[in-house]
Amino acid sequence: MAEQEGITVKKENFSEWFSQVVQKANLADIRFGVQGFVVYPTWGFKIIRRIYEYLEEELEKDGHEPFWFPTIVKKSDLEKEKEHANFTPEVFWVTKAGDKNLDEEFALKPTGEAQIYPIYSLWIRSHQDLPFKAYQDRMFVYRNDKQTRPFLRGREFPFFESHDVFATHEEGLKQVKKDFEISTKVLYDKLKIPFVLFKRPQWDKFKGAVDTYTPDTVMPDGKRNQLASTHDLGQKFAKAYDIQFLDKNGEKQYVWQTCYGPGIIRIAAAIFGIHGDDNGLILPFDIAPLQIVIIPVLFSKKKTENDKVLKKCLDIKDKIEKLGYKVKVDDSDNNPGWKYHNWELHGVPLRLEIGPREVKAGKATLVERTERKKFEIKIKDLDKEIKKHAKSLDNEIKKKADDYFKNNTRVANSLKELKEMLKKHKGFVKIPFCSDDFDGEKCADKLKDETDGGNVCGVKAERPEKASGKCIMCGKKAKCIVYVAKSY
Amino acid sequence: MAEQEGITVKKENFSEWFSQVVQKANLADIRFGVQGFVVYPTWGFKIIRRIYEYLEEELEKDGHEPFWFPTIVKKSDLEKEKEHANFTPEVFWVTKAGDKNLDEEFALKPTGEAQIYPIYSLWIRSHQDLPFKAYQDRMFVYRNDKQTRPFLRGREFPFFESHDVFATHEEGLKQVKKDFEISTKVLYDKLKIPFVLFKRPQWDKFKGAVDTYTPDTVMPDGKRNQLASTHDLGQKFAKAYDIQFLDKNGEKQYVWQTCYGPGIIRIAAAIFGIHGDDNGLILPFDIAPLQIVIIPVLFSKKKTENDKVLKKCLDIKDKIEKLGYKVKVDDSDNNPGWKYHNWELHGVPLRLEIGPREVKAGKATLVERTERKKFEIKIKDLDKEIKKHAKSLDNEIKKKADDYFKNNTRVANSLKELKEMLKKHKGFVKIPFCSDDFDGEKCADKLKDETDGGNVCGVKAERPEKASGKCIMCGKKAKCIVYVAKSY
Repeated sequence: MAEQEGITVKKENFSEWFSQVVQKANLADIRFGVQGFVVYPTWGFKIIRRIYEYLEEELEKDGHEPFWFPTIVKKSDLEKEKEHANFTPEVFWVTKAGDKNLDEEFALKPTGEAQIYPIYSLWIRSHQDLPFKAYQDRMFVYRNDKQTRPFLRGREFPFFESHDVFATHEEGLKQVKKDFEISTKVLYDKLKIPFVLFKRPQWDKFKGAVDTYTPDTVMPDGKRNQLASTHDLGQKFAKAYDIQFLDKNGEKQYVWQTCYGPGIIRIAAAIFGIHGDDNGLILPFDIAPLQIVIIPVLFSKKKTENDKVLKKCLDIKDKIEKLGYKVKVDDSDNNPGWKYHNWELHGVPLRLEIGPREVKAGKATLVERTERKKFEIKIKDLDKEIKKHAKSLDNEIKKKADDYFKNNTRVANSLKELKEMLKKHKGFVKIPFCSDDFDGEKCADKLKDETDGGNVCGVKAERPEKASGKCIMCGKKAKCIVYVAKSY
Repeated sequence: MAEQEGITVKKENFSEWFSQVVQKANLADIRFGVQGFVVYPTWGFKIIRRIYEYLEEELEKDGHEPFWFPTIVKKSDLEKEKEHANFTPEVFWVTKAGDKNLDEEFALKPTGEAQIYPIYSLWIRSHQDLPFKAYQDRMFVYRNDKQTRPFLRGREFPFFESHDVFATHEEGLKQVKKDFEISTKVLYDKLKIPFVLFKRPQWDKFKGAVDTYTPDTVMPDGKRNQLASTHDLGQKFAKAYDIQFLDKNGEKQYVWQTCYGPGIIRIAAAIFGIHGDDNGLILPFDIAPLQIVIIPVLFSKKKTENDKVLKKCLDIKDKIEKLGYKVKVDDSDNNPGWKYHNWELHGVPLRLEIGPREVKAGKATLVERTERKKFEIKIKDLDKEIKKHAKSLDNEIKKKADDYFKNNTRVANSLKELKEMLKKHKGFVKIPFCSDDFDGEKCADKLKDETDGGNVCGVKAERPEKASGKCIMCGKKAKCIVYVAKSY
């Protein structure tokens, strides 16, 4: 591939920084030639795949079984969900094969409900079939978005969806809590992305849901990034697609459903955007496609001297590989400085620099990607040192992200304060608000107008804060504390 | 899901047997409602996923990197490959979004070349970028086939493709051999599918290739099943898509390419068709979604007695799980006989039956799926016994498949003999043939007419047999021994 040059802007110029990182760290290639459809080269793909693996592990531990549905959805099935979802205006239609029109057009799926639930109505028969918990992933969905941007909005984007069916609403609500735990385990524990878990306002939930819950984070440009959604679907789709079961008394009942949809590329965008720095990506140790890069420092004029260094590097690589880490020696023709730069840009967590001096002393210079601190380590302590520095790197990433996030949540008690904060700072602002039920929508619309795009994200899903005082929009008694942020 | 009834026909009635196995063992659900698009429920999907995992492991060991391209292909890119591939008549076209026509229609990809190679022409610049070995998988391709059948022909089917780029033809040819090894490791060693590795006749190769190589097996109905293909692409696509590199002397050269495409669903079809028996699926131990099923035999009238048995079953399950096997206790309301039947149908390799007598004696009855032989084993020897019986089951599957395959290759020395053999027996027939170069095509066409659909599959790719005598069609001196079989 073409030689990389570094990022030419500071991260505070976030939009341009993000575009450059996506391109220069080989996260996505936008030259595919159809708007909103991108190629994920190896580096970007491996990060996406690791996110999938984390989710698969947690979902399967929680009793979900994988399955695979087609890329398409039947026209008549899509029409049944119109009332609840209505993706119709954004749907891509397949109308021809060769040069002949199809008898029945079909659509590229905008999401799974309309294709999965008709089959659920065939599969689910009796209370013995419940609970039924399944998921599909490592595939795309399709929506004809006007604005597209790699990892933020695509017309084709990597998808993950679980669709769970229960005999009672109570079991469904338990699954909702379980989904929260999975979000925390994957997004925060593994990927170090801090978030607030919201219950979306009624006017902004998924139409087909009783309630929608979302872990949202804030990107460095101050915009909300919705990382996933859990919908308590109640019996709405059960009735639309006729999913019923015979209960223990032999009576027919509609099922209760939930679904969980982590936003794979938006999760990736949060990793890139929140952890990265002026030099490029910073990746938690476990998710990095390459965890340790070894750079031979060959400045001797004697070939034998250089060969010795190279041999040592390869020996160390073998040792590290046996310890189970992803490692490589960069023995390309580029100079060491170029290599340092390139692998920092790609976010490789640890770098080992080895020259003749190190070979003689049985040592290596280890550099952590985060603050680029250097450490002299003994080769014989390799195992211990890698563990130690991987951990300290992860801690640093986590601490930096936590601090960033904490400092990006503010409190406003008037529209004036809110406006100032949204303008001056970046992040969430908490305000007292009249209602997160349908009757709050008017105030939310007005707020959006007045703040140039501020969105009411919702109330905290767990332990919602108690409101006091008055709604900053209408002046009525505040029923809740809602969070406001701009969004993509 | 609905209760299963067993297979109602013998395997010798292969076509009906196969349809029933697909449906009743939950391999695919054909009720999706669009021809050629099926749902893969958990059981079928997990088998497909395991095949993918085997291939991923081998390809990555061989230095291939994964990436991910869109589901679609640009019209203008597809047109560039017309000369070599020409999938155009079978291509599905996306022409609309919502109710508006698209400015440029795009196609669901019939295969990867036309979408991947334009990007390769951007990525590959210098000899330092070569060799470049990459693959994508766990996705679908799309062709508007008239006839469709689950696992044999679909309009949407699970795909795997590697696309390799080299500086010299010699390196490409080495990769072709490497692909042969991968086929052997996955298809034969892991999945116990015997095959012959062919070099396809020139008139039946992939048009864009210099040569096409395929591991083909024979299904129980006597039809050839092409399990994979390796194409030596030479420089044909390099020239069509302008993929060039600067060599060490600074001169521009076209690259040399190969690609490898295991046919995921046809491999699955071979596992089902070749190993299965009158009672349903038989799966090699490692590929089974569930390896060991424990059936509690609860015939006591005393609840305490039954509880003891159930508890013992769960204890044993925990033990087996810790050993790293996929295991479950079937404690559903169905009777033991029904359960035996159901899990045999699904091909679960080992069954443990545990009743009060077994609990008392610290024993269990182990049943191997293959010949349904019963063994009394001691619970304390569980680890050793599972290993032993898993191995003996795999050996039995392999032996049966090898025998079946050996007995299905015959020799004919005249058209009359060939006709009789193809009619009476099922499998490959070897014949002396004038040529596998373009000048043999006429004889091949005539052979097909005369034998009601017999196909010349090609010559053996490695150690091709020496021909003597005359071509059974034209009477000219035979240049090669070719294999003939009917195909789907």
